[in-house]
Amino acid sequence: MSSVFTILGGDMRSAVLADLIKSDGNEVMLYGFDKLKQHKGKNSSIKDVITKAKFVIGPLPFSDDNEKIHAPFFTEEIMIEEVLKYLNESQLFMGGKINSRIIDKASDQEVKIVDYFAREEMQVLNAIPTAEGAIQTAMEEMSITLHESKAIVLGYGRIGKALSKILYGIGANVYVEARKYEDLAWIRNSNYSPVQLKDLKSYLPKMDVIFNTIPQMILDKETLKFVDKKCIIIDLASKPGGVDKTAAEELNLKTISALGLPGKVAPTTAAKVIKDTIYNIIDEWEV
Amino acid sequence: MSSVFTILGGDMRSAVLADLIKSDGNEVMLYGFDKLKQHKGKNSSIKDVITKAKFVIGPLPFSDDNEKIHAPFFTEEIMIEEVLKYLNESQLFMGGKINSRIIDKASDQEVKIVDYFAREEMQVLNAIPTAEGAIQTAMEEMSITLHESKAIVLGYGRIGKALSKILYGIGANVYVEARKYEDLAWIRNSNYSPVQLKDLKSYLPKMDVIFNTIPQMILDKETLKFVDKKCIIIDLASKPGGVDKTAAEELNLKTISALGLPGKVAPTTAAKVIKDTIYNIIDEWEV
Amino acid sequence: MSSVFTILGGDMRSAVLADLIKSDGNEVMLYGFDKLKQHKGKNSSIKDVITKAKFVIGPLPFSDDNEKIHAPFFTEEIMIEEVLKYLNESQLFMGGKINSRIIDKASDQEVKIVDYFAREEMQVLNAIPTAEGAIQTAMEEMSITLHESKAIVLGYGRIGKALSKILYGIGANVYVEARKYEDLAWIRNSNYSPVQLKDLKSYLPKMDVIFNTIPQMILDKETLKFVDKKCIIIDLASKPGGVDKTAAEELNLKTISALGLPGKVAPTTAAKVIKDTIYNIIDEWEV
Amino acid sequence: MSSVFTILGGDMRSAVLADLIKSDGNEVMLYGFDKLKQHKGKNSSIKDVITKAKFVIGPLPFSDDNEKIHAPFFTEEIMIEEVLKYLNESQLFMGGKINSRIIDKASDQEVKIVDYFAREEMQVLNAIPTAEGAIQTAMEEMSITLHESKAIVLGYGRIGKALSKILYGIGANVYVEARKYEDLAWIRNSNYSPVQLKDLKSYLPKMDVIFNTIPQMILDKETLKFVDKKCIIIDLASKPGGVDKTAAEELNLKTISALGLPGKVAPTTAAKVIKDTIYNIIDEWEV
Repeated sequence: MSSVFTILGGDMRSAVLADLIKSDGNEVMLYGFDKLKQHKGKNSSIKDVITKAKFVIGPLPFSDDNEKIHAPFFTEEIMIEEVLKYLNESQLFMGGKINSRIIDKASDQEVKIVDYFAREEMQVLNAIPTAEGAIQTAMEEMSITLHESKAIVLGYGRIGKALSKILYGIGANVYVEARKYEDLAWIRNSNYSPVQLKDLKSYLPKMDVIFNTIPQMILDKETLKFVDKKCIIIDLASKPGGVDKTAAEELNLKTISALGLPGKVAPTTAAKVIKDTIYNIIDEWEV
Repeated sequence: MSSVFTILGGDMRSAVLADLIKSDGNEVMLYGFDKLKQHKGKNSSIKDVITKAKFVIGPLPFSDDNEKIHAPFFTEEIMIEEVLKYLNESQLFMGGKINSRIIDKASDQEVKIVDYFAREEMQVLNAIPTAEGAIQTAMEEMSITLHESKAIVLGYGRIGKALSKILYGIGANVYVEARKYEDLAWIRNSNYSPVQLKDLKSYLPKMDVIFNTIPQMILDKETLKFVDKKCIIIDLASKPGGVDKTAAEELNLKTISALGLPGKVAPTTAAKVIKDTIYNIIDEWEV
Repeated sequence: MSSVFTILGGDMRSAVLADLIKSDGNEVMLYGFDKLKQHKGKNSSIKDVITKAKFVIGPLPFSDDNEKIHAPFFTEEIMIEEVLKYLNESQLFMGGKINSRIIDKASDQEVKIVDYFAREEMQVLNAIPTAEGAIQTAMEEMSITLHESKAIVLGYGRIGKALSKILYGIGANVYVEARKYEDLAWIRNSNYSPVQLKDLKSYLPKMDVIFNTIPQMILDKETLKFVDKKCIIIDLASKPGGVDKTAAEELNLKTISALGLPGKVAPTTAAKVIKDTIYNIIDEWEV
Repeated sequence: MSSVFTILGGDMRSAVLADLIKSDGNEVMLYGFDKLKQHKGKNSSIKDVITKAKFVIGPLPFSDDNEKIHAPFFTEEIMIEEVLKYLNESQLFMGGKINSRIIDKASDQEVKIVDYFAREEMQVLNAIPTAEGAIQTAMEEMSITLHESKAIVLGYGRIGKALSKILYGIGANVYVEARKYEDLAWIRNSNYSPVQLKDLKSYLPKMDVIFNTIPQMILDKETLKFVDKKCIIIDLASKPGGVDKTAAEELNLKTISALGLPGKVAPTTAAKVIKDTIYNIIDEWEV
């Protein structure tokens, strides 16, 4: 596969993505990066970069207002409406976290559009930089090593799985809280200690670090009382998160909210994850 | 939890199951094991052992003919009809691989019946003895160590996951074939080499051992031609399996069908898996 | 074992050490911590705290000038001469990195003195916080995840072993450079890729991170030319280290010297390592 | 490196070794295998095969009587005396477990002779097939899986290290008995549970399998009394081993002596280990 791509707006990840796609032997145009020194003064028109490309890659997130493409390194604006106008049905337009109204509008105009962030494999691959970011945060905050520490992971979804695996690899004593008997069985198969929700309070006092991945209030005031004062709590669940921050503060417990880790701790890996997902989409599309 | 159980028929696993449940502090009656020396001459009636128990545990498999309970160590017969007659709605009746007609009949008679083998966690936990049995078979057949060998696992379901994990733990170079991009992403996360079906033939020649877990003809004549003559093929998929045995023989390839491994290689663990599943069922039932 | 200990001077690790020994059920006196709020105004005399203790624990490092005990939290001074004077042969005096002249002087005065830092098990246990500190540093500096990265460890001593193990646990592709065939064999047994010194230059270009543990100039100017511009170099070897820093700077390579990691990244674990070693010394002494 | 080798006598491992060296691009002559169908009727003289080779490779073990080379597949005899006579100082003669008198005699005649079995890296690499053989034996004998079992390894030398690593990789709860504090520290670093000899008896009752690697009577009558009746004991120590077999039998404990595992369970790997060691010897010799 060697083809023509246009990278349309986005942050540093999009710039790295352009480099990665290029080094695979593709032709890559960038549009919307004139604040970056290395991409300054490249003045193709929006019409040119879109009509000449087979694949047009929008950013993650796609848009802040559903009118303009998210383009923090651009001194001008990229209107979604205009982009759609120049696209035809032989091209593929992609982006991350695209609003469904935009997807509908694209379909109406017979533009082929795909949200790469909605792909399961992207979420799975993203769990790794998220987990490493959580590990790095824990290492920075704890006065003991993760090795030989007691660490509990709340939730056994994508991030819970990636995180418990790495903790185990470092040599922590890994506990994982999950609800479903099926998940508890997988936790046993993986050599972690399974913890049922009803037993959580009896495990908390001996934990050195708690990683929450559940986007629901699981560490409420009543539960937090069982947490040791020296324990570090790292909340990886999207807002409002799973920890009662006010109660944690009152109890003098150290809580850290860690969001958007892939882009922060490993932007190049984050870009590579997008690239791999895009290639899968193209593979399926071309069959 | 301390309660009264009756173990009704079954093979050695059921006898071990009785011991395990007893050593957890429960009262356990056995019925249908008079060929076993240690259970000879215990002559409660079928009516007694059923009416006195809170939980009646049938075997895995439950029945060969859907009329009698599977009871290879019994000199007499246990009629399902009769068992159902003595049960009432305050009791719970369990078994493994129960025919749906029997389940319907029990429901009609207001008998509470549950198939433990249908529980996802039982399948998950059973994947471990299956995987260890496959590893043992490979060790017995191969003239090289699994450590530093090249091993490919076809399929990434429950057994594929358990097996690749143990192979990796032993130090094999682990390749896993899967179809879904999501699974391929999990395979990468687990540090194995992902293999897409379309690329399988290019990986086969260098493999030292192939484990098939896919219950479909994946290693057909055409594909088997790419397998090295010294490679061992272990087929874990239920009949008819995923390997063209005739073609394999013609090509002089060593193929081993390995089925029902948990009961064969680790009967005590197999009994423990049933016990844990039964306890989960009781937990949910009592809530 | 329950006994009387005196902690004599030292930094935060010594203060934590006091807490740890106390929570094992021992009586612990501190001397030399009056700058720390919690230990202010405790005014036993030096004579008292020494004569009343069975075990007197000096700090790591023991002394900066071989005259005074290292005591950064003390407003006064602790003279080694004076300490030795109050000790008798039924007591055990310990410290870390004690100058041999002091050990000789103690022996002359029939004082039993042991250097805990000279114990092999202390060095082995310390390798873990050193390795985690190196991992944390790498995570902070790299724009990709360690998982799926290519990491090379130079040297396979205590730190090299601990570090390569954790890197492997995180899912890095681990290469280890060693000289002895015996070490190269252990590296293979551990599933890492062994690299001989003569082949190092051919491996360097593809590495994402290099950890040096060899206290000799191994990454000289000539060798550094083979390192990729995006690669991070972390030098864990004691001064002058194993990397030509000037050459690295000229070549625009990012190099980080990371020393004294246990006390910095995991002071509580560092204290625990000292405690465990002290207990071993006492065990042997009491036999 | 491409050179001329002669394989002189030996069992199947030597025959496999010949194939392996040949497939690396070397010229290989065999002598002493006329009972093997594929090597029948090759009738070069002993003088020819020795004088034409640069490297002459004797078997492991080298000789049963220190007069003739061990050659179970030969209908004739290979006299050591004669072999030495034909060798000159530009050649290298190797073998495994060579008696020191033969080494002295060779030196006297200015023949360069090296015992590959005495090389540390050979012992290290051999620990892997030994460990896998022990694992296979355990799997065959136990009625539970190694995963989630409690396994203790007595001794932390080469085999103890390789074995505990693989047990851990399979998901066993790994305990390791060692004497030196240094080894106990390494055991902790590796995430196993360290056991001191003095505490052994308190750990034994809960073990499911015991692997002994210590060539001294460690499991004597007194100690065996603490072992559970269902526990399997696998003795890997060379004769007389570390288990009181008579006492074990009286106590109805299942004990298995497993010796010479590499050649039995993984002959091809065993040959490869010899090959790798021989290449190292040649590398050093040629510098």
